[in-house]
Amino acid sequence: MSKQILVLPGDGIGPEIMAEAVKVLKLANDKFQLDLELSYDELGGAAVDKYGVPLADETLERARAADAILLGAVGGPKWDAIDPAIRPERGLLKIRSQLGLFGNLRPALLYPQLAAASSLKPEIVSGLDILIVRELTGGIYFGQPRESKVLENGERMAFDTLPYSESEIRRIAKVGFDMARVRNRKLCSVDKANVLASSQLWRAVVEEVGKDYPDVELSHMYVDNAAMQLVRAPKQFDVIVTDNMFGDILSDEASMLTGSIGMLPSASLDSNNKGMFEPCHGSAPDIAGKGIANPLATILSVSMLLRYSFNQVAAADAIEQAVSNVLDQGLRTGDIWSEGCEKANTQAMGDAVVAAL
Amino acid sequence: MSKQILVLPGDGIGPEIMAEAVKVLKLANDKFQLDLELSYDELGGAAVDKYGVPLADETLERARAADAILLGAVGGPKWDAIDPAIRPERGLLKIRSQLGLFGNLRPALLYPQLAAASSLKPEIVSGLDILIVRELTGGIYFGQPRESKVLENGERMAFDTLPYSESEIRRIAKVGFDMARVRNRKLCSVDKANVLASSQLWRAVVEEVGKDYPDVELSHMYVDNAAMQLVRAPKQFDVIVTDNMFGDILSDEASMLTGSIGMLPSASLDSNNKGMFEPCHGSAPDIAGKGIANPLATILSVSMLLRYSFNQVAAADAIEQAVSNVLDQGLRTGDIWSEGCEKANTQAMGDAVVAAL
Ligand SMILES: CC(C)[C@H](C(=O)O)[C@@H](O)C(=O)O
Ligand SMILES: CC(C)[C@H](C(=O)O)[C@@H](O)C(=O)O
Repeated sequence: MSKQILVLPGDGIGPEIMAEAVKVLKLANDKFQLDLELSYDELGGAAVDKYGVPLADETLERARAADAILLGAVGGPKWDAIDPAIRPERGLLKIRSQLGLFGNLRPALLYPQLAAASSLKPEIVSGLDILIVRELTGGIYFGQPRESKVLENGERMAFDTLPYSESEIRRIAKVGFDMARVRNRKLCSVDKANVLASSQLWRAVVEEVGKDYPDVELSHMYVDNAAMQLVRAPKQFDVIVTDNMFGDILSDEASMLTGSIGMLPSASLDSNNKGMFEPCHGSAPDIAGKGIANPLATILSVSMLLRYSFNQVAAADAIEQAVSNVLDQGLRTGDIWSEGCEKANTQAMGDAVVAAL
Repeated sequence: MSKQILVLPGDGIGPEIMAEAVKVLKLANDKFQLDLELSYDELGGAAVDKYGVPLADETLERARAADAILLGAVGGPKWDAIDPAIRPERGLLKIRSQLGLFGNLRPALLYPQLAAASSLKPEIVSGLDILIVRELTGGIYFGQPRESKVLENGERMAFDTLPYSESEIRRIAKVGFDMARVRNRKLCSVDKANVLASSQLWRAVVEEVGKDYPDVELSHMYVDNAAMQLVRAPKQFDVIVTDNMFGDILSDEASMLTGSIGMLPSASLDSNNKGMFEPCHGSAPDIAGKGIANPLATILSVSMLLRYSFNQVAAADAIEQAVSNVLDQGLRTGDIWSEGCEKANTQAMGDAVVAAL
């Protein structure tokens, strides 16, 4: 039976970069006889425009029925002033939560061809290859109760709740250890156990899970120190596992170490490795519609999709190799361009990957 | 009447660096006729050893009675295994909270003499001068309820609460705007208003306070983006104001941009500018007792103390100038040493500042 992929181009540059990624996906489908079937829908602002909500029930059902989801990016100034309850991001949070996509993999990889793009000194970042494993469906992002209210004295106050259960921590810790096992066997769990009750449980459970992975070297680090160490000596890390909020912050910091966030894909997986795949970067409204966005992160998200949800290692490797070849040819979109390289627009970049594949 | 300063050397390298800072403080006292009186007590692990708790009631009373507090650093492996309720950090959190030290100022300043120490490219960080204003007595650090429990199904769970009230946000926002006013008139408020209820209130109240500061340019940024922008282009920031947890993470990240966290002081102020002053770095147990720690952050904390709590601008400036002169002389402790400079131990560095003053 053929595999169903739901494509959600989203907002801003989403549709442009997705067009290129879909070309690559279709070619891989033919070349490696993957028997994939694509369907399309909207998420985020585009869904607000079409359905009145950032994630329509029918879209959610299609996403449930699909074997994997490929997402562009969501959000933009057009929807900044609308009711917070239907902001584009809400659609993203809802699809993550409703599909149980708790395991978020965010690689921070420095492409040797792009080493100059980093704001860090070459010796600090050359060869950088970190994987951040972020818990994506729990913690303060979804914790109840959360409320905004007026106190008796007339003062406003608001609060959020940061909860974690043993099973939530256990399953994301396992993802961290499993990833470390197929990489350099080092896992750093990041928390704030010197202050937070939830972090104390986090640390205890990660320790317990670690008993089943004697071959992986486990360490713990406070989040403030991790934010510092990522700047000081990022190559000390192999895999980092952390909670939803800390993962949000540290994965963005780590991706920026490479200087080329336009290159970084991500995966959000459920317990059966069904997943949603998307670039780490946002919808970049400032350059939307100009045809100059970098499609490579989305193309590499296709590679992650084939690798993690369909176990199509050869096809996934081939796409990564094609991207690397295109960089070797000297082709660059504006965001990664440097002296001596050839400027390419979104479509030219996509075509080059197709040709290389 | 003379001003009372309570000195809390703390743990690890605390006593060593404090000895040098006290020399400088005493000299400034004589030279500028400040009429200061010093007394000493313990905080953190040293207090656990002496009193059985990381902040004894009598110490807290002395701190209340004092006009300012000078702190070294707390914590160390010796107290890692003790009851979490009396860990060294608890003393730090308690003194902050009990004294109402809500306004935490953490400068990230790159000393031109130490530009090479940064892991970032010189053009990215040269001239860097950011001030992070962190809310220090509210938010998830102190929010109730917080609990660790066993659910009916036998599973453990734990949660924390992140609350903010209008008045808490208002007073720290004012600190941010006031600081921006005497600097480059740019304030960036950092939150996660696309996800958190507390951040939505944070953003609304900061906006309201901003009405009273039309001369300060206010912007808002999500915390994940801020973590990224600090790496990409840190010089875009002047003053950043943010909550307790985000401030913890971002101030450490920002301080590491300078490459010389051993140089950075901090102030924690109450609503009357009474404050506690301490280096940004920790207790560095690995080098404690060796006499090689960098005392300059603590010496610069003395300068902040004189400036912020006692309004002794001339004395504060003189100490900063003395530190700068010592760097010009080429004297460096190990943490900031580079080729061509002269290595100095803790005491030699303190003596040099005394001589320069
Ligand atoms: C858009 C936002 C809600 C989202 C998050 O915070 O998770 C984004 O920053 C991300 O990291 O995917
Ligand atoms: C020691 C710890 C509790 C403390 C904090 O998180 O506030 C420290 O990291 C700091 O930033 O002063």
